[in-house]
Amino acid sequence: MRAADWVLVTGNPGKRREAEEVLGRAVACVELDLPELQSDRLEEVLQAKAEEAWQRLRRPVVVEDTGLELDTLGGFPGPLVKWMLRAIGPDGIARIAIERDEPGAVARCMLMLRDGGGSVLAEGSTRGVLVLPGRGEGGFGWDPVFQPEGETRTYGELPAAVKSEIGHRGRAWRALLEKLRAA
Amino acid sequence: MRAADWVLVTGNPGKRREAEEVLGRAVACVELDLPELQSDRLEEVLQAKAEEAWQRLRRPVVVEDTGLELDTLGGFPGPLVKWMLRAIGPDGIARIAIERDEPGAVARCMLMLRDGGGSVLAEGSTRGVLVLPGRGEGGFGWDPVFQPEGETRTYGELPAAVKSEIGHRGRAWRALLEKLRAA
Repeated sequence: MRAADWVLVTGNPGKRREAEEVLGRAVACVELDLPELQSDRLEEVLQAKAEEAWQRLRRPVVVEDTGLELDTLGGFPGPLVKWMLRAIGPDGIARIAIERDEPGAVARCMLMLRDGGGSVLAEGSTRGVLVLPGRGEGGFGWDPVFQPEGETRTYGELPAAVKSEIGHRGRAWRALLEKLRAA
Repeated sequence: MRAADWVLVTGNPGKRREAEEVLGRAVACVELDLPELQSDRLEEVLQAKAEEAWQRLRRPVVVEDTGLELDTLGGFPGPLVKWMLRAIGPDGIARIAIERDEPGAVARCMLMLRDGGGSVLAEGSTRGVLVLPGRGEGGFGWDPVFQPEGETRTYGELPAAVKSEIGHRGRAWRALLEKLRAA
């Protein structure tokens, strides 16, 4: 039986809302300035973050990390997308993919629960295309330029319930809940 | 007076050779599997590496980190270039810059000496353009596709002494030596 009293480590109100959408309840969050490991593997970044958060708080934590893998860059930048976003913004990222006629990308989210019993990892991913101009006021980060497969709307345009249903983060949360139920 | 008995933390024979070229003597190296911090600032990456190396070895260390800042990506990927290199290789990186008619880039190297007295930071940078096809068998990493300003040869084609003279790493080493002499 895993602890149910975990806190979500994030300072991002968008990530909090998406967790609450899936869980159907308020989620306690803690903002920690966690150093992140340089890696192209989400799981590695997450493991280090979960360990650090657990050491600091000594209570069950859920940490999250998200990557955007561009087809045209062989999967780069993945978890390093936050730095690319900072350098050239969502439109800059989309422009590279579109200019090269390879607009495909995978949005990936991993969640890790860490408590005294160890850790549980869950993943969700969504394939889509990058589009310009960006559309929609919802979401955050690169949401306005990411259009999930099978959709005509971007993450930025999707109602929260739909984004949760088909989005990478919603899928990761449901996968985590399922694992916790099964544990 | 700073310690002269530092070791260089690197497992890269090319980096070792370039240090020896400037110092004019053999350089003792130690390969440590140091975790690197995610950041777009070389100095931040280096500070964490130096601290970790010092804690592990408890002897004076010099750590190094290098970045490649593409004009066309607003300075990205900087210190994260190793992951981009892994994903799409030197040619892939050069292609993005050339396709967009913005081939300019800055190669930057930072060195940090850490000993019991604290740390000393030195930097060297070289402006250039990315070229395709890559040329030359010398150097390593993206050397074949980087042509320093004022040169018709790439880093990969330059004799070691010339690369040391005008290259980012040679400049960083000379800056470090100067600071140590002045200290």
